[in-house]
Order: sequence, then C-alpha cells, then structure tokens
Amino acid sequence: MPKTIYFRAEDLYDFTISFFKRYQVADEDARIAADVLLSADLRGVDSHGLIRINTYYGSRLAKGLIDPASPITTLRESAVSLALDGGNGLGQVIGYRSMQRCLQKANESGLAMVTVCNSNHYGIAGYYAMMALPENMIGISLTNSQPLVAPTNGRNALLGTNPIAVAIPAGKEQPYVLDMATSIVPIGRVSVYQKAGKPIPEGWGIDKNGNVTENPDEVLEGGALLPLGGTEVMRGYKGYGLSLLVDILSGVLSGASFGPEVGQPKDGKNANVGHFFAAIRIDLFREIMDFKADMDRYIFLLKNSPLAAGSDRIYIHGEKEFAKEKDFRKNGVPLMEPVVRMLQSAGKEAGVDFNLEVLRSVQEDI
Amino acid sequence: MPKTIYFRAEDLYDFTISFFKRYQVADEDARIAADVLLSADLRGVDSHGLIRINTYYGSRLAKGLIDPASPITTLRESAVSLALDGGNGLGQVIGYRSMQRCLQKANESGLAMVTVCNSNHYGIAGYYAMMALPENMIGISLTNSQPLVAPTNGRNALLGTNPIAVAIPAGKEQPYVLDMATSIVPIGRVSVYQKAGKPIPEGWGIDKNGNVTENPDEVLEGGALLPLGGTEVMRGYKGYGLSLLVDILSGVLSGASFGPEVGQPKDGKNANVGHFFAAIRIDLFREIMDFKADMDRYIFLLKNSPLAAGSDRIYIHGEKEFAKEKDFRKNGVPLMEPVVRMLQSAGKEAGVDFNLEVLRSVQEDI
Repeated sequence: MPKTIYFRAEDLYDFTISFFKRYQVADEDARIAADVLLSADLRGVDSHGLIRINTYYGSRLAKGLIDPASPITTLRESAVSLALDGGNGLGQVIGYRSMQRCLQKANESGLAMVTVCNSNHYGIAGYYAMMALPENMIGISLTNSQPLVAPTNGRNALLGTNPIAVAIPAGKEQPYVLDMATSIVPIGRVSVYQKAGKPIPEGWGIDKNGNVTENPDEVLEGGALLPLGGTEVMRGYKGYGLSLLVDILSGVLSGASFGPEVGQPKDGKNANVGHFFAAIRIDLFREIMDFKADMDRYIFLLKNSPLAAGSDRIYIHGEKEFAKEKDFRKNGVPLMEPVVRMLQSAGKEAGVDFNLEVLRSVQEDI
Repeated sequence: MPKTIYFRAEDLYDFTISFFKRYQVADEDARIAADVLLSADLRGVDSHGLIRINTYYGSRLAKGLIDPASPITTLRESAVSLALDGGNGLGQVIGYRSMQRCLQKANESGLAMVTVCNSNHYGIAGYYAMMALPENMIGISLTNSQPLVAPTNGRNALLGTNPIAVAIPAGKEQPYVLDMATSIVPIGRVSVYQKAGKPIPEGWGIDKNGNVTENPDEVLEGGALLPLGGTEVMRGYKGYGLSLLVDILSGVLSGASFGPEVGQPKDGKNANVGHFFAAIRIDLFREIMDFKADMDRYIFLLKNSPLAAGSDRIYIHGEKEFAKEKDFRKNGVPLMEPVVRMLQSAGKEAGVDFNLEVLRSVQEDI
C-alpha cells in the first residue's frame, strides 16, 4: 500500500493558485479554482480534488481546450433566472460566479435558477450548493458529466454520474449537505477494486453485453456503471430517472451537450458541460428561526434513534465531510504518495515547484 | 388468484364523485378528488387508487378527521411563492388547488414554489407535477408521508416513502414523468409477497433489530423498509438522503409534521402532511421549440441504444403509465375482485350503489 503524506491546507492552496496562474488564469479566478479543488480533498472527496489538477485542468489549459479567461456571457435574464454561456472556461470559476449571481437574484426575488452551457467539469457539486448556507438559503447544484452509466435495460454508457447537491441550513446542528452521484459508485471506486485485484459488489456495474459483473475489468473495459438502485429488482430505474433528470436540467435546459455527447476530459474538443443552480430563500415560507429549530429537532431525533444491530452511529448528510474538513485543516490534508508525485511532475511542467513541507507521512491501509 | 374485473373509466369516475359528495365534499372538489384517485388506477399505480377510497378518505371524512370543505388559507405570499395551510382538507383537493396557484404564479414570474402544511395523503405525486405539462413548464411535486423507512444504520421506521415527482414536456415524444418513492419499494409490495408466501429480495427491508431480512413478516411486524439503494455497500444512504430532502422541503419548510410525527391514515388525529410544489417556465432558459427538439432527440437516442442481454426495451420514465392509461381508457380499468367487493361495501356505507356494468372479468396471474 502506498504512503499517505500530510500537507498544510494553506500550502496546497498556494501551490494550486500558482499552478493555475501559470496557465494564464487571472489571480481571483485562480483563487476560486484552487478553493473549489482543495475543498474536495478537505471534505474527504479526494477523487474530485488535486488528483485531477493536470488531467482535468492543467493539461487542457495547456492545449487550449479550456479558456483561462473563463468569459461568461448572459443569454437570457429575468428577475428570477439567468441562462449563461460559460465560454468554455474553467468549470470551477463558472460554477462559483454563476451561483453567486443566483444568490444575488434570490436575495432580491426570493427564488432564482441559473442554467449554464459551454462549461467544463466543475469539481464537487456540493461546493456551490453550500454557498447558499451563509445567506440562510437552500442551495441546489446539478451538473451533467461524461457518459459512464447505462440506462436500465441498456448496455452502453449513455449517462453521466450526474450528481445532485443540496445544502440546507440548520441551527445549532450542522447543515444538511447532500452531494451524491446518481450512479451507485463513481468509476474511480471500481478502479480501486481493480488495482487491489478484488471483485466488486454485485450490482455496481455491467459488462459490455449488459450483464451484471463482479469483475472490475469488465466494467472498465467497455462496460458501464449502474444507476443508484442497481438492478431492476432493486429499482435501478429510479436512479436512472434521477440521472436523466439531472441531465435534462443541466444539459437540455441550458443548451449544453447531454447524454453520450458530453465531452470527456481526455477528448481533444470542448466538453460543453452543462450546470443547473438554484437558490431558495427560506423566509419566503417560514420564520428562519422556526425553520432552523425544526431542522435541529429533526437531526437530533434521527441521530439519537435506535441503531441497527452492528451499527454504531446514524449520520446526517454532510456530517462526515464537516468532521474531515475540521480535522484536515488542523492536522494536515492527506494525499496519497502517487498523487504527490503527480503534483511534483505537474508542477514541474507548469513551472511551479511542489516543495511543500511534509507534516507527516503514514503507511496506511485503504 | 383473485379475478380481475374491468369497468369503464367514466363509470368509476361518476361513482367516486358520488361517494365523495355523500361525505359533504362540494361538487367541484369531489370531481377533483375523483380525478386524482382514478388517475392512479388509470396509470397502473393501483396501490394509490380506488383501493384507498375508504381507509384513506371515506372513513376519515366520516369520523371528522378530514374536513370536507378543504379550507385553504394563505400564510405567506410573494410574486414567486405561497406558504399555504391546507386546513386539514382532502389532500387531492389541496394538492390540485395549490399546484394551480403555483402555475399561475410561474406564468407571471417565471418560477414559483408552494409549500403546504396541515394536509392529508394526496394520492399520486405525479398528478400535480403533470399539471405543468400543458403550460410548457416543468412541474415538481413532493410530499412527506407516514413513517415506514429506516435511516441508514437505524432500525426504526422514521421516514416516509416520500415520493419525488417531476414532469418535463417533450415534443413528438411523450413527456418525461418521474414519479418515484424514495424507498426501494412501497410497503404494499412487501404485503403482496407476504400474501403469496414468498421471500422478498434481499435489501428491500429490515427486521425489528435492523438486520436485512427476506421474510416479509419481519418487515411488516416492527421492521422497516430500506431507502433506494438499500444497504450501505449499495449506497442506501443516498436514498436516505433523498427521503430526508423531500421531508425537509415538504414537512419542515412548510411547518407541517415531519419524520415519525407524520400521521398515519389509521390514526385518530389530524395527519398534518406537508407538500412542496414547484413550476419552472422553460422559456426562461431556452426557446421551447429547441428544448422540445432536444428532448425528443435525447429520448430517441436512449430508446434506440443497444439493449442489455435478455432485455427487450429501454423505457423513459412515464412511458409505461401513458400506455396503460390509453389502454384502460379504451378497454376498461382493471380492479381486483377484493377491491370491487370493498367498493361495494364502502358505497353501501356511504349510501351510493356500486352497480357498474362489468366490461369483462378475467382470471389472471399477478
């Protein structure tokens, strides 16, 4: 097993800013992109963090496949809505600025929705939903993504893992933050099993003929992931429906690509990813204090209810991630040794040294 | 196996209107309630149709546990929102009128959301979402419901099967209509297996200790359903997160009951069910013709993509239900013989004869 190496969050943040700036990303935009990217590692969603700095962003900026200026234009506007064109900029910058404008509109009008076409992979969906929390609003963030998931009864990967993120404030309790792919697992989880030489649980994916397989190779080579629920008997068509819903709102409604036409990071063309954002002012419906008191009561009730045999705790969505962020900000952010080596070489390519102080280095079981 | 008996949709509709009128429901409200209730049978969602006419509605009207006047009051209002109090009226009447007002507001403002507290079981969630379709809008309908589902790692039924319904127009193709419980299956599905003396698929439910069980008795007697996804390894916490989301928007945001406090039809008190409705005008974001053309292209692409081994067709959500409605309107609505007997006795109680013409009667395997 490779080592895990811990770095200060601030050091990783500074490195990432320098990295983006080397690709002609403006100062403020580089800070935004670095913050979104690092927030994935801080929240323990390391599949969406620095591990992707080069394959998803650096190398595409270098090849001119992402515009570092991230020029956003407005296609349609009303008091409650915006239809934006991301100008093939960095997904994180487009996501951040789109949600910011969504929150401004919702502040004035009570509700707002924003669609975005012509964007790129924007990192973790939850980041943008959570921007609503300090404003006492409910935030929603959806995006489509490269095709990896088969529709129920189909054999081809036609849908993305199209995530749903919703953030809802509470009072004394931590906010509810749902941030879930609409597939059972992301493709990276299957790769982990492949590398470990282990079979995957039955139902996660299918082979190239559409048969459920426990062999990770068969999923990765011409097969597909299954949507949440999995097989028909477990109602996988509901996960398929949710994935399709996310793509209709993000891809079709925005005028971006959808389904199998959404670009892959490895493609030599624009990805034309689509996003959907929404913000809801709670005080349209209830006194915020009353709402938060009930959220606290509900969360307390769930967390203190009887446990299933063999379980030690009931979680609220987002709870584990908040705990990790607190820990990692204080004690360092863990990166796998191969990720560190990749950052060193990506930094070298970009002309930024990755010579950060190592806080500690641990041999861990994964 | 019991017989299936077919009746004319119009005859069932007239009977249901008369039934509700006998319980002091006003003419127009009786027509609304009958249309929603019958639409479940017409769409093949017979668990939510006439089978419930007495246990969920008639007997509660008779006992004064539902107010036949369905007096709706407005708690808060803005150009884009309404917070309504259903006055403990019939859920179907409240749902219909709330969505109607939601659509009016969205017509004027582009978007609208409506919360409702103090309501009752409103039948199929999809009915209200589909009201948006003729207006070229996207419709959303959510509701909480009596506790039947355990949170991940918990053993008690604390959450409802809290459905998500979303209706989105297409062009030449039929609309996308998602109408899904956030549990794997409804409780009635487990009862079907119990009655047939068959084990349920592993993962649908847990026993009173929180262990996954294939014994339907153990789920029905002190156990619970599992949320979409099922066990932890299949990511059941995503379904738990969706169920909780529906309850926060329907129950907490509206000020209704939530979680285990939502009333059961058999309770001798007000149910205080909560609903959430939303409507989105497509032309805020894109030309409707372009949107519909892309919907058609996406639906065609999915339905004509390669099939998994052993599958004969890829469906779009709502497609099976549209086909059933067309068939049943033409050839008669199927009701199980025990349901017909129940309608006869419920009619007798209410003072309305159920003496409808039988179109045909068939001995079927279920």
